[in-house]
Amino acid sequence: MRKAEATGKAAPEGSGSDGKRDARAELKGLADDIISSIDRKENPKIVTTTRTKSNVIYDDKEGILKLGDSTEERTFVNVGQAKRFMQTMAVAAKCYKFVTENLHTSIRGLFYQLKYSLGEDIDENIFNEQGESNPLIEDLEVALNVKREDLNLNATRKGILAGNMKVMDSFGDERLEIDTARLGRSGWAIPSDVDNDIEFVDVKAKYVLVVEKDAIWQRLNEDKFWQKENCILISPQGQATRGTRRIIRKLSDMGLPIYVFNDGDAWGWYIYWTIKTGSINLAYIGSDIATPSARFIGVTMSDLEKYDFLKKMTMRASEVDVKRAQEMLGYPWISKHKEWVDELKKVIKTKMKLEQDTLQGPRLTFIDDYIREKIKNKDYLP
Amino acid sequence: MRKAEATGKAAPEGSGSDGKRDARAELKGLADDIISSIDRKENPKIVTTTRTKSNVIYDDKEGILKLGDSTEERTFVNVGQAKRFMQTMAVAAKCYKFVTENLHTSIRGLFYQLKYSLGEDIDENIFNEQGESNPLIEDLEVALNVKREDLNLNATRKGILAGNMKVMDSFGDERLEIDTARLGRSGWAIPSDVDNDIEFVDVKAKYVLVVEKDAIWQRLNEDKFWQKENCILISPQGQATRGTRRIIRKLSDMGLPIYVFNDGDAWGWYIYWTIKTGSINLAYIGSDIATPSARFIGVTMSDLEKYDFLKKMTMRASEVDVKRAQEMLGYPWISKHKEWVDELKKVIKTKMKLEQDTLQGPRLTFIDDYIREKIKNKDYLP
Repeated sequence: MRKAEATGKAAPEGSGSDGKRDARAELKGLADDIISSIDRKENPKIVTTTRTKSNVIYDDKEGILKLGDSTEERTFVNVGQAKRFMQTMAVAAKCYKFVTENLHTSIRGLFYQLKYSLGEDIDENIFNEQGESNPLIEDLEVALNVKREDLNLNATRKGILAGNMKVMDSFGDERLEIDTARLGRSGWAIPSDVDNDIEFVDVKAKYVLVVEKDAIWQRLNEDKFWQKENCILISPQGQATRGTRRIIRKLSDMGLPIYVFNDGDAWGWYIYWTIKTGSINLAYIGSDIATPSARFIGVTMSDLEKYDFLKKMTMRASEVDVKRAQEMLGYPWISKHKEWVDELKKVIKTKMKLEQDTLQGPRLTFIDDYIREKIKNKDYLP
Repeated sequence: MRKAEATGKAAPEGSGSDGKRDARAELKGLADDIISSIDRKENPKIVTTTRTKSNVIYDDKEGILKLGDSTEERTFVNVGQAKRFMQTMAVAAKCYKFVTENLHTSIRGLFYQLKYSLGEDIDENIFNEQGESNPLIEDLEVALNVKREDLNLNATRKGILAGNMKVMDSFGDERLEIDTARLGRSGWAIPSDVDNDIEFVDVKAKYVLVVEKDAIWQRLNEDKFWQKENCILISPQGQATRGTRRIIRKLSDMGLPIYVFNDGDAWGWYIYWTIKTGSINLAYIGSDIATPSARFIGVTMSDLEKYDFLKKMTMRASEVDVKRAQEMLGYPWISKHKEWVDELKKVIKTKMKLEQDTLQGPRLTFIDDYIREKIKNKDYLP
């Protein structure tokens, strides 16, 4: 889908809104190109954008981490690249099979299929370790401008959601309507893929609140916070998975403001920045999963001055926390914000941290008021 | 609820099926007992069953790990115990408050409430570390014969379920019907508490299939395995939480056979044994969360002889795997089964392991046939 948009090329096998046929068409296009190279007696090649750190750039205008312009060519007739070229083709062929059969698996499932592939009689594996096949999947994502999810490869899923919204999910030939306001204390488990064969309708909420910890999600859900405030309440349950980052982005694209409420330490803040600008590791899909409009409502070190009781709630920051804060100071997309520099320097200087759970100190529902007040007063960090 | 059943004592504030009022009554009973001790000028005390490893026993008749008969007394007028006694009272008072207000929090939320309790002017904390408050919660669970969940303390939740079953969940004053057959690729996220204010109705499935990994759950869910086989498909998503273990037990109590399909390594097997007999750490609630009827359908080392292709799918067991296998041989409730001794010895000897994902090698749906065949042929381990 994105490829067709980006290049203006018509996808030969259809370019429906489900994105699936596009991935299939892209895979077929790749194979066709290689066959014609061979027919023309040229050296078959794959061109992909370089994913090394040196080619990760921060796009100041868009506010996201993405890949720069460096490209890499993998050719078949090349002693150093032939094996990897063959492996990439094997991965592409499997993905084409999965997409055609309309079956999904994990990248581990793909690895075992590849390991099986050469049959029992041949004492040679296409891959020995999953560490070999994983980067080739990323190669394909970048070369074809599709996401792993479009190739029917599920990623780890984690993350929970509740709010005034309906999900039209597919389950084989069934079309299911799931009301995310009617899932009680469970909430809706965010799937790996929130793009293909799934739709979000009746999104009546006014904003999105992301809270780092599931325990806090459960607390707010019990208070019907999302119902009272008419928001969508999401917890990534720690660091956000691809699926959770993607759904936050999609809700932002629908015009909903995104507020993030995490622990007041470098780790919680890093989770926020990962949601906002994307991450270096996933820069190759930054345009899809980063949400530059996200704002941080807490916990901050400055909260210590606003809420007196928090002074006795601080914890000692670990060495890892302090080191992470120092690293974050080195990221220009963070250090261009004075507010964040102040926060990070406070952590480094005082070696303190402040968990979001502390806001239950005075009473369990204090946390609700804290969030309401922060949003009302626009008291958030960029 | 259990206490009232176990002792035949009428719970003064009602003994409804929701268990909640009972926990409240138990907490009040504890407080009343202490007040009358003081009135009688006796030294207030709490009696609890010892939770140290030496008092964990394997009940061969029931097939579960539980606590033995050793008890401990905590008295107030005792230099070594006064602080802990005071702390236990503080925990009990907070839980009483939560249960009365009908609000839940995590054990971390409880800790921060206790930290806050003495007010800002007093330079002394009831607790400095959560490591101090956690064991006191367990003390209360044992002394009052209630579960943490009954005290409105949420535990970490993890685990997903799909199948022909309905959940009647409470969400404040709302009563919600959740059809676990209509949740598409997400499934139903198993909550922390599956006992209070929640019911499982229309359980039409014939058996329960537990699969260790979420990736395998997603694979089988996509194949509509639970629909075709009319089973309930659960993944603990790794080691099973209290809530997931409890729901497996509840489904077993409803007469459903429980089959477990995990990785073929000591870790996967240990997850099985934790579901089946309970664990040493949670022996104090073993009667509630262990499911002695559970059976293990794979992956086993013996599968290598049955399925030829698996021979090239093995991985090298790590040192931790081998060490864990040796430990498991030392557990009499495991080593009494010849089949398990054979399996464990094979791991120790060959230093091999076999992931459940390998069964996708020949084709993605091979895993479905493997499970069907194992169940049909009763080819499982005790």
